Amino acid sequence: MKDIATYLNEHKQRFIDELIELLKIPSISADPAYKGDVIKTAQAVADQLKKAGCDHVELCETKGYPIIYGEKMIDPNLPTILVYGHYDVQPPDPVELWDSPPFEPVIKSTKLHPDGAIFARGTCDDKGQMYMHVKALEYMTSQGELPCNVKFMIEGEEEVGSVSLETFVKENREKLKNDVILISDTGMIAKDVPSITTGLRGLSYVEVEVTGPNRDLHSGLYGGAVANPINILAKMIASLHDENNHITIPGFYDDVEELSIEERNKMAEAPFDLQEYKDALDIDAVYGEKGYTTNERHAIRPTLDVNGIWGGYTGEGAKTVIASKAYAKISMRLVPDQDWKKITTLFKDHFEAIAPDAVSVKVTPHHGGQAYVTPIDHIGYQAAEKAYEQTFNKKPVPQRGGGSIPIVALFEKELESKTILMGFGLDSDAIHSPNEHFGIWNYLKGIETIPYFYKYFTALST
Amino acid sequence: MKDIATYLNEHKQRFIDELIELLKIPSISADPAYKGDVIKTAQAVADQLKKAGCDHVELCETKGYPIIYGEKMIDPNLPTILVYGHYDVQPPDPVELWDSPPFEPVIKSTKLHPDGAIFARGTCDDKGQMYMHVKALEYMTSQGELPCNVKFMIEGEEEVGSVSLETFVKENREKLKNDVILISDTGMIAKDVPSITTGLRGLSYVEVEVTGPNRDLHSGLYGGAVANPINILAKMIASLHDENNHITIPGFYDDVEELSIEERNKMAEAPFDLQEYKDALDIDAVYGEKGYTTNERHAIRPTLDVNGIWGGYTGEGAKTVIASKAYAKISMRLVPDQDWKKITTLFKDHFEAIAPDAVSVKVTPHHGGQAYVTPIDHIGYQAAEKAYEQTFNKKPVPQRGGGSIPIVALFEKELESKTILMGFGLDSDAIHSPNEHFGIWNYLKGIETIPYFYKYFTALST
Repeated sequence: MKDIATYLNEHKQRFIDELIELLKIPSISADPAYKGDVIKTAQAVADQLKKAGCDHVELCETKGYPIIYGEKMIDPNLPTILVYGHYDVQPPDPVELWDSPPFEPVIKSTKLHPDGAIFARGTCDDKGQMYMHVKALEYMTSQGELPCNVKFMIEGEEEVGSVSLETFVKENREKLKNDVILISDTGMIAKDVPSITTGLRGLSYVEVEVTGPNRDLHSGLYGGAVANPINILAKMIASLHDENNHITIPGFYDDVEELSIEERNKMAEAPFDLQEYKDALDIDAVYGEKGYTTNERHAIRPTLDVNGIWGGYTGEGAKTVIASKAYAKISMRLVPDQDWKKITTLFKDHFEAIAPDAVSVKVTPHHGGQAYVTPIDHIGYQAAEKAYEQTFNKKPVPQRGGGSIPIVALFEKELESKTILMGFGLDSDAIHSPNEHFGIWNYLKGIETIPYFYKYFTALST
Repeated sequence: MKDIATYLNEHKQRFIDELIELLKIPSISADPAYKGDVIKTAQAVADQLKKAGCDHVELCETKGYPIIYGEKMIDPNLPTILVYGHYDVQPPDPVELWDSPPFEPVIKSTKLHPDGAIFARGTCDDKGQMYMHVKALEYMTSQGELPCNVKFMIEGEEEVGSVSLETFVKENREKLKNDVILISDTGMIAKDVPSITTGLRGLSYVEVEVTGPNRDLHSGLYGGAVANPINILAKMIASLHDENNHITIPGFYDDVEELSIEERNKMAEAPFDLQEYKDALDIDAVYGEKGYTTNERHAIRPTLDVNGIWGGYTGEGAKTVIASKAYAKISMRLVPDQDWKKITTLFKDHFEAIAPDAVSVKVTPHHGGQAYVTPIDHIGYQAAEKAYEQTFNKKPVPQRGGGSIPIVALFEKELESKTILMGFGLDSDAIHSPNEHFGIWNYLKGIETIPYFYKYFTALST
């Protein structure tokens, strides 16, 4: 019976190699062209779960991509941990900004990752963080260190809104029954500042289409006399924020959870260097809602961002055209107590209302999810806290995350259990960006920490 | 010696077939991928000029595409007409909106063109209208009806700002010496309302780039805390017009020629049906500068239109990203007395000034040109008026065109002669749009009318 540190030392090269193999498959769920690769990835993960010691593994068919279910039940009287993760990845665009091909993983050292980081799409979000749990399971089963029951649910549609997951969860409440849900799909404040994400923002993602004339027009013959859909779209988007960068959609802030001064002060204790933050992004100034700090803006405040815009002539050279249509993809990050479906309706109604008569507007909701909070007095949080203390030799900091894992709220509703977010990535890992990477140190630290969570959660449960 | 009507009847099928051959070559000057086709087109036009009776034809090399020069000098004591046109065409995008391939010409009847129209990119702008002059020359030379000297200057970069033409004109003042310049690159009010364009708008075309963070960011981790270049670009574009759709760039209107009430009343006499105009474009309302009619907005008032915009994720599905950069192509149509270089500078200074600290902005001027006016007491105008009366049996209406042919102002400056714009296209011909077409009736009417211009201009000159 080896302890995890020893086991890691013996097997770490294989753990790295196995992850690299997984990263080579371009499982881009947003692009139908990669359907075969997404399914191939699901199969590969299922095989690894079996090897890691699951008694029973299946690829559960859905309307979209399969959900991998695996389990190792050792005693019905012991608690059950449900591990969630996803095997799909974001599109790599813009590919030209990658220093190495997104699906040809390379290990490079960086200032933050002196012992190397694996560069590839999905390495941190979420293949690498998901695979930490598979390897932690391998350790526990092979060394007789698994203290409780474990279930795995790994999906392939997280980057496109987990479209099939809700149905799956509703139809499999019994099968997915658990005492706590464990997810590694978030980050920590810094390598020397372990943190547990206690809050997530919700999301509402919509696509808008503005139509003017029924065809593209010559800007000389018609310019100035008809509404230009691009100018109108720009005007409409601009009007969604006021001069203080508050969002102007009526009712948007009605249900927003306002934190107390105490809570905001506690948040402000987390280490943060604004100059470093700006330097890392090459910006002269930050920009956001008046009256809130940078950390508050991306954690406890709702936002509205255009994620993509297009219309008219975007090729080489010049074309003097007035486009018939202009488009934008717009997402809103939501905070606790805002309902994403209500916000989506508020947006749709407002956006249609502010369109001038000279154009027609179509708003198509994409997907969304609710915000979520984990109370720090939950035994799951306490078990995680002890696990981090064991491997980092310091108490982790509770933090509100700006991102969204919409299904966490869904789990609480359907499975009636809380989710613990043990993230080992760093903000600088460039998830969703070119040159996404994941530190080998972080990857191994995750594998090392997870078994302690199992140990302390079982202890605290009984 | 046949009259033009008889000659047309005998040769019209060949005239149509020859134009169709020319339209099959995709001479897209904006896209380097078509370089070979642009040059092939130049060669084809040069050959036709020779066949039509030019004594001397040459392809004059430039830094860009060759300029075709041709001449037929019959007597140094007779006046000389310089015909200008262009053999390049606009890109066909968006190709998917064409009912037939843009470079596979087809003849179809339409409500406005019962005897058929040729559908293809460049059929009206400007291959068809340019080729009318070649065929009119063929008639005059073959039938001994050429009353004066004629020179041709046909360029291949009109759709990308005539980049090489200015140098060529400056270096060939003697060679291009003429008494009047004749161009068919505009339209007429309606088939039964012949008109002569007496004014053109100037143009300033720029491209803008807004840069925020140095890489694409996850909109959850950073949303709300950093400037989103797309939102900022939308805000900046929106701010370029006020609530009355006046352009807000300081000094923009300083030099604008204000028309007298008399002139505006005379303009208002031109037949125009707002409901027909809206129906043709499928719009419920027109949109433009407060205090001016639709016809004034696109003829005597300067405008600012976004011709293209792009940034972020524009592919299938959803990507929660904050883009590092956002781009737009913006053009301003100018009126007499506005200097395009001054306006370009005003735009650049203003656009850079309104950018928040959180982003950096780059403004790249593309090209431009001055507005232009032809006085109706000029003998060129009078000759054209008589020519139209002869073939349409009614006096043509003088009209201000909204489009720009920047080189017309250049010609006046460098060659010290006025330009007569005898256009035979219709606004509904969809130039610069999918399904561009040119009525066969209009094409033949142009060939029929041009020789009379030669006749009356020679008569009025001596």
